[in-house]
Amino acid sequence: MGVSSNRVEDSSDSAIHETILKISAEPIPSLDIHSVCLPPNKTTFQKLKHRLSEIFFPDDPLHRFKNQTFFTKLVLGLQYFFPIFQWGSNYSVTLLRSDIISGLTIASLAIPQGISYAKLANLPPIVGLYSSFVPPLIYSVLGSSRHLGVGPVSIASLVMGTMLSETVSCSEEPVIYLKLAFTATFFAGLFQASLGILRLGFIIDFLSKATLVGFMAGAAVIVTMQQLKGLLGIVHFTKKMQIIPVMSSVFTQTEEWSWQTIVMGFSFLFFLLATRQISMRKPKLFWISAAAPLTSVLLSTLLVFLLRTKVNEISTIGHLPKGLNPPSANMLYFHGPYLALAIKTGIVTGILSLTEGIAVGRTFASLQNYQVDGNKEMMAIGVMNMAGSCSSCYVTTGSFSRSAVNYNAGAKTATSNIILAAAVLVTLLFLMPLFYYTPNFILAAIIITAVIGLIDYQAVFRLWKVDKLDFLACLCSFFGVLFISVQMGLAIAVGVSVFKILLHVTRPNTMVLGNIPGTQIYQNIGRYGEASRVPSFLILAIESPIYFANSTYLQERILRWVQEEEERIQASKESTMKCILLDMTAVTAIDTSGIDAIHELRKTLIKRSLQLVLVNPVGSVMEKLHQSKILESFGSNGLYLTVGEAIADISSLWKAQQ
Amino acid sequence: MGVSSNRVEDSSDSAIHETILKISAEPIPSLDIHSVCLPPNKTTFQKLKHRLSEIFFPDDPLHRFKNQTFFTKLVLGLQYFFPIFQWGSNYSVTLLRSDIISGLTIASLAIPQGISYAKLANLPPIVGLYSSFVPPLIYSVLGSSRHLGVGPVSIASLVMGTMLSETVSCSEEPVIYLKLAFTATFFAGLFQASLGILRLGFIIDFLSKATLVGFMAGAAVIVTMQQLKGLLGIVHFTKKMQIIPVMSSVFTQTEEWSWQTIVMGFSFLFFLLATRQISMRKPKLFWISAAAPLTSVLLSTLLVFLLRTKVNEISTIGHLPKGLNPPSANMLYFHGPYLALAIKTGIVTGILSLTEGIAVGRTFASLQNYQVDGNKEMMAIGVMNMAGSCSSCYVTTGSFSRSAVNYNAGAKTATSNIILAAAVLVTLLFLMPLFYYTPNFILAAIIITAVIGLIDYQAVFRLWKVDKLDFLACLCSFFGVLFISVQMGLAIAVGVSVFKILLHVTRPNTMVLGNIPGTQIYQNIGRYGEASRVPSFLILAIESPIYFANSTYLQERILRWVQEEEERIQASKESTMKCILLDMTAVTAIDTSGIDAIHELRKTLIKRSLQLVLVNPVGSVMEKLHQSKILESFGSNGLYLTVGEAIADISSLWKAQQ
Repeated sequence: MGVSSNRVEDSSDSAIHETILKISAEPIPSLDIHSVCLPPNKTTFQKLKHRLSEIFFPDDPLHRFKNQTFFTKLVLGLQYFFPIFQWGSNYSVTLLRSDIISGLTIASLAIPQGISYAKLANLPPIVGLYSSFVPPLIYSVLGSSRHLGVGPVSIASLVMGTMLSETVSCSEEPVIYLKLAFTATFFAGLFQASLGILRLGFIIDFLSKATLVGFMAGAAVIVTMQQLKGLLGIVHFTKKMQIIPVMSSVFTQTEEWSWQTIVMGFSFLFFLLATRQISMRKPKLFWISAAAPLTSVLLSTLLVFLLRTKVNEISTIGHLPKGLNPPSANMLYFHGPYLALAIKTGIVTGILSLTEGIAVGRTFASLQNYQVDGNKEMMAIGVMNMAGSCSSCYVTTGSFSRSAVNYNAGAKTATSNIILAAAVLVTLLFLMPLFYYTPNFILAAIIITAVIGLIDYQAVFRLWKVDKLDFLACLCSFFGVLFISVQMGLAIAVGVSVFKILLHVTRPNTMVLGNIPGTQIYQNIGRYGEASRVPSFLILAIESPIYFANSTYLQERILRWVQEEEERIQASKESTMKCILLDMTAVTAIDTSGIDAIHELRKTLIKRSLQLVLVNPVGSVMEKLHQSKILESFGSNGLYLTVGEAIADISSLWKAQQ
Repeated sequence: MGVSSNRVEDSSDSAIHETILKISAEPIPSLDIHSVCLPPNKTTFQKLKHRLSEIFFPDDPLHRFKNQTFFTKLVLGLQYFFPIFQWGSNYSVTLLRSDIISGLTIASLAIPQGISYAKLANLPPIVGLYSSFVPPLIYSVLGSSRHLGVGPVSIASLVMGTMLSETVSCSEEPVIYLKLAFTATFFAGLFQASLGILRLGFIIDFLSKATLVGFMAGAAVIVTMQQLKGLLGIVHFTKKMQIIPVMSSVFTQTEEWSWQTIVMGFSFLFFLLATRQISMRKPKLFWISAAAPLTSVLLSTLLVFLLRTKVNEISTIGHLPKGLNPPSANMLYFHGPYLALAIKTGIVTGILSLTEGIAVGRTFASLQNYQVDGNKEMMAIGVMNMAGSCSSCYVTTGSFSRSAVNYNAGAKTATSNIILAAAVLVTLLFLMPLFYYTPNFILAAIIITAVIGLIDYQAVFRLWKVDKLDFLACLCSFFGVLFISVQMGLAIAVGVSVFKILLHVTRPNTMVLGNIPGTQIYQNIGRYGEASRVPSFLILAIESPIYFANSTYLQERILRWVQEEEERIQASKESTMKCILLDMTAVTAIDTSGIDAIHELRKTLIKRSLQLVLVNPVGSVMEKLHQSKILESFGSNGLYLTVGEAIADISSLWKAQQ
């Protein structure tokens, strides 16, 4: 379907042909005028196919399968769905050594974190450990990231805890609550895997970084406040998640504060924060912060064990059952009054954990210069959660803290997740009694240390400096989470982000261009001081698609430019304006309202004895101008490829007419 | 705050200064390289002010007040709010003659239409006449259009009737229904006037033409089906507005069909449609279709009067009270259970009638080459409806059919609306008994004739031809109105329109540019056959802002272009690729995610030994690149004004290094 420069392969519209041919076939001899081409002629079906393949397959996943034998295709397909076959064949003892070290390092972090995060989701602590066993095993087979440390994460735990607790009390109906958590996990997995299979991964792109920064900071503030329950030893605490009831719970129940808990809790919190600072300053000392949680758990457990006869006020985890994950497929709800709640919770936690998992995966992939396939990761995380929901796990994903430790500890492949799972297995089978005296305040301290890193004030400052509307989206999600609810905070922030896109389209920039002397460059007069107006011409550029949402505005705005220019010319007594050039380079799309607007604009300008000329419409715009037959009315001098050629050609025409 | 070409007035960032200065101060002697300028330095407050003034005052309404004396300002201000002072001072007898003729012509159309449309809204017919008296008077003082014929319109009547009937039955609780209609009218007016005062008129732009075409066609089909009640003489008819219950009402109650009604009704319908056809073919004969409704009403009334003893089955309007609009301010609800319904109905009918009124005003203004100020019109229509709600009127706006007749009859100013009001006044005071025998079938026939013009199948065909997604939005609103409800149909269509904008942003076009030999023009290789690749360079253009919603996609898509180019080069054994030029001309905005994406992209390309160069970022993008300090990492050869200069400069640099 090649289109040569001077010929357009479309037999339906001969008037346009003539127009275009005239421009190119009969230029004023001294000038070299180039015609504007239509894009290659495509049928509606071809266009639809191209559009859909750009929407769903921008990464061209079948590319590698081209021109291969059947057997190679089979192997490649297997490697595509199970990346373990890709890296497994080159696996060596050297790699294994690195993976064992990193696997054990993240295990020392994952075990206390798992117990803590389960508490954050109002689940029994043991569920946190279960969730650090099955999902890492599944991810190591399906996942395409080499550094992702898989397990429960704070944000998803928090959101699940909040959303379920609004309807079901975890203390009064613990079994229903547990069932709901597994069901929500199942739907989270189903949703994640569906996004991957349907290749709708771009949906998570709508959670912009600005939104997430605000959301995470808000969640971190709430979680930190909430953990004061454990750190201060408060027994009666609100179940709500807004900042106001949480703060009032903390400060109205001062009689419940226990000084022993406070002293020990804050000491360990200080210790954990200090180790975190050290590792942040010197990345080589990552193992200090990685080992700190387990060390604190062991130390505090020992302390509470030794003081058990003297201090009764310190609450501990208590009895944890020994043994592997019990099956939980029979606990999933697929009907009944709570199904809608489970699905909603599943979708929200699913989308949040997916966002975190994929962002973390991409971050570490780019550090080592390999690619993580978003859609494949979604399938891996989704399958991992569906399988998890059948084996007493709740929502898991790639955690940033664990992946960073994994990366720094030298992990080379997903085998480190298998080592992690093995360490958790040993814990589950033999070490559970050790946690009997583990105090709750140490879990609170671990959670605070983890979430405090989510408050990225530098990013907020950067948002303020670079993009005020991004900053606004960030603030909205921050205060939305703090004062309304987790879901509303997210919804508001997504709304602000979308509104921002619409605002850009509704009120696009328009500007006057001038010529930079001695060149064929035409640039914004307001920005380039040396650019000067071309007498008798007004050159305008529009910086946005022309849509129904802005067609009226653009029409009015262009007429205002014309009027202002006329007033300026009158004041400075220059030669009269005769021609308006519309530089369409940045008009990346047009719809029927936009075409009508251009048509109207042309008619209005003609009534003022002004000629309207379009310059360099892009492919899709040119196609629609052509299809709507609006170009016919523009005549042979209404369409040029560059501003320079338009000015040269029209000026010489004027001279010839004189 | 002027910025000269080679200097950037920003002291904070000397590295950028050096970069830019280096490019411009030390070009390779043989080349004339232009630097990329920052836009003039503005404070956050100035930028906010500029942005807000573009959003709310794109028409610069204070422009005319500049450099005027206080008295002139006062007169101009009065003329701004009451356009009657503008055209009133030049009013002459010649103009009056034209206005009387056109005013009487539209009165002959407005009286039968008013009665019919009130029936459409399930209101007593007299309310339709009241609504043709007060609003035209108010509009003639406040309105800025010279040709708008004001009164009840079919779409707003239909929507009000539907929305109110869903909750309150007009036959069982007629007083509450009437009160609700006036209250909804009040809120419609309040909403319209607020949009005008707050200058939020662009909200109605979100009802795209494609949406409206579908919506109106759907409404017209439903209304036509519903009017079969009157035309067939059916007594028991559904109150629902979906197509399925309406159709079943028509065809299941065949025993209620009355052949006398059918014969007369379809005869008059045929007559009205024929006169409509004649006037459409020959616009000069506009008076035929303008006079036809009144003629039909008179003829059919006479016929029914003469046959009154012989035929009892024909339902007539019956008694109508003589006299002027009674006040109805005391009938407005401002509390109680129905308030929410009234507000909702008011907003939906308000937005729809505003859209119609402004579109009609703009259409006729552009025919006569004068401007209609959208925000001013909104205030006029809003005040008119608020005043109307206190004088027994329901929602009114500029009607297309009436304005067309007004225009064709030679109306020169809004005085024709005063003449219309005077004619309605005479009717209300003296002629009401004449309508006693007016049959309902004639009202049905008038409504059908009016709404059938709303089915614009040519526009639908054009949408299909030019823009498939616009066509989809049109279909959605059409079927939404037919099968779900009027509000849902509109909501779905607006959703599709917004989704279309987001889709364009989420999956923007990217393309490879090539040089057109012998020029400095770089164009899409796929579109311009003569454009050829520049060896060692890959020139890519992005056709959209870079936002959070597409930053991941663009990063992956660009890497795929690079990979495909590398494979092509390998196959054809050309010289290796060394530099990627990113033409940012059409990248009209960027946010923090976009900046991160460019940063990431650059790092990834460097790992593949490829240089990334940005070309011609627009003002706002340049500003953000500068603020985020990302330009520092690009070095002195990372930013150029044109593709040609970039290639020339980088090539000569490579030669110098060899």
